[in-house]
Amino acid sequence: MSLPEQVRIVEVGPRDGLQNEQKVSLENKVKLINQLTDSGMPYIEAGSFVSPKWVPQMADSSDVMHTIRRKQGVTYAALTPNLKGFEAAIAASADEVAIFGAASEAFSQKNINCSISESLERFAPVMEAAQAKGVRVRGYVSCVLGCPYQGEVPISEVVRVAKALHDMGCYEVSLGDTIGVGTPLQAQRMLSAVADEVPMPALALHFHNTYGQALANIASCLPLGVATVDSAVAGLGGCPYAKGASGNLATEDLLYMLHGMGISTGIDLDKVAAAGRDICTALGFQPRSQVNVALHAK
Amino acid sequence: MSLPEQVRIVEVGPRDGLQNEQKVSLENKVKLINQLTDSGMPYIEAGSFVSPKWVPQMADSSDVMHTIRRKQGVTYAALTPNLKGFEAAIAASADEVAIFGAASEAFSQKNINCSISESLERFAPVMEAAQAKGVRVRGYVSCVLGCPYQGEVPISEVVRVAKALHDMGCYEVSLGDTIGVGTPLQAQRMLSAVADEVPMPALALHFHNTYGQALANIASCLPLGVATVDSAVAGLGGCPYAKGASGNLATEDLLYMLHGMGISTGIDLDKVAAAGRDICTALGFQPRSQVNVALHAK
Repeated sequence: MSLPEQVRIVEVGPRDGLQNEQKVSLENKVKLINQLTDSGMPYIEAGSFVSPKWVPQMADSSDVMHTIRRKQGVTYAALTPNLKGFEAAIAASADEVAIFGAASEAFSQKNINCSISESLERFAPVMEAAQAKGVRVRGYVSCVLGCPYQGEVPISEVVRVAKALHDMGCYEVSLGDTIGVGTPLQAQRMLSAVADEVPMPALALHFHNTYGQALANIASCLPLGVATVDSAVAGLGGCPYAKGASGNLATEDLLYMLHGMGISTGIDLDKVAAAGRDICTALGFQPRSQVNVALHAK
Repeated sequence: MSLPEQVRIVEVGPRDGLQNEQKVSLENKVKLINQLTDSGMPYIEAGSFVSPKWVPQMADSSDVMHTIRRKQGVTYAALTPNLKGFEAAIAASADEVAIFGAASEAFSQKNINCSISESLERFAPVMEAAQAKGVRVRGYVSCVLGCPYQGEVPISEVVRVAKALHDMGCYEVSLGDTIGVGTPLQAQRMLSAVADEVPMPALALHFHNTYGQALANIASCLPLGVATVDSAVAGLGGCPYAKGASGNLATEDLLYMLHGMGISTGIDLDKVAAAGRDICTALGFQPRSQVNVALHAK
């Protein structure tokens, strides 16, 4: 049990965040990503190459990827559910791609209309194409601490799906508490079980703050050695399963905690907060980040 | 390092919360306290016997104490800064009283216009009167993880003030992160140092959520054995040092975490959430509790 000296933040605001908000302009997306780049963010999920019928907010991901100012050493990633999406992402010069599976059978059926096993099979062509082109693939597992449809999700299922994604070539597997229902002991037990099958350096936490538990869960998991955490600037992205409630953990709140614990991230909190205020001005609401509000209220 | 099986919640919403909000009617205060009583809350800080010039929101504390429906076994407490306040609280049948000191010299000077040592001396008559009447006294220490005026607060000062309050007869000392700036390791170190001088069963945590850190800090301190935590229904009470930002940790969010960790409180979360929604309707804003909003949004 020892804390990591450094934590790598995966900023998912421009994708996981904005896909759950009203549509913002290309200009505002590019500005947001450029500001995040300037903050020292090492990894930015910049868009999603899915059907614009499903996710109209991400229809301009190709333009976003082509217009942003890129900085050496920063990864600009894209979500790609299938081969078509993968090819579009690569054509738009995505540095990396991500695929997503669920640990809940009910969620898989409701969301992508197939079983967990079928969804994993469907990723095979993307994995092959990525390997052929030398593109790294990140895997997401959703519903790791609960499901909006089936409720409890057995830890064994989380382990199975995480291991499958890692085995098929994902260099990193991000464990998502999609509906934010988890609490600290549960989070520790889940992470610990997954880490028995997938090496801890290949694991990331992606915890939502719907019930205010995200930071407590992360604080409880850090001593297990996990050193990559996903978050979204300004807490962008509400919870689609509880309208009006929070979704993603705010990057500002996470940075504040990590820096306060002496854990370095290489990121300038004030610059992230400024980026969060700007995009929220465009969206017409206050940042869903306690740190951002408190810093600005001073 | 082992988690407590049970945590005692000290509900401070009707006092620490409402004293930092616009004034609500006697009827609404009484309704709130009665609802909290019905939720199974074991301890409710129901009012404050201070000058109505300083805190007009608490001017009707005597009426509140006289009007509420009391349940056997529940403690209805009042804040009493001096002997006059103490006598008024006892006349209003407060079960217990609380006094407050600061760990920060600058905060003490700015807030109560005297040094820490002088403030402790001023409590002597209250302690004597309380002992004579067999009334238990709870002590608050503010600024245990930082001060709005002097910034850092040495842990040694927190220990000194906590020990002084315990030595002068406070059966419990509540450690307050008044401006919510602390992070988990800092909280652990502070609590651990205080517990070297004051027995852990006589300590409580009172963490504010201004920077979103309160639950993470509590989750990090629970394994040290602390088993009493203060919170305010619906997160009542903004942060007077960062206008627009949050103050008290929401009781709902705390209960959700504790129950999820298998720690019992004897409190019905849904009833607390309903109480929170009712008082927030009276105040004209949404509950400042992620759990309350998420439960209601379902």
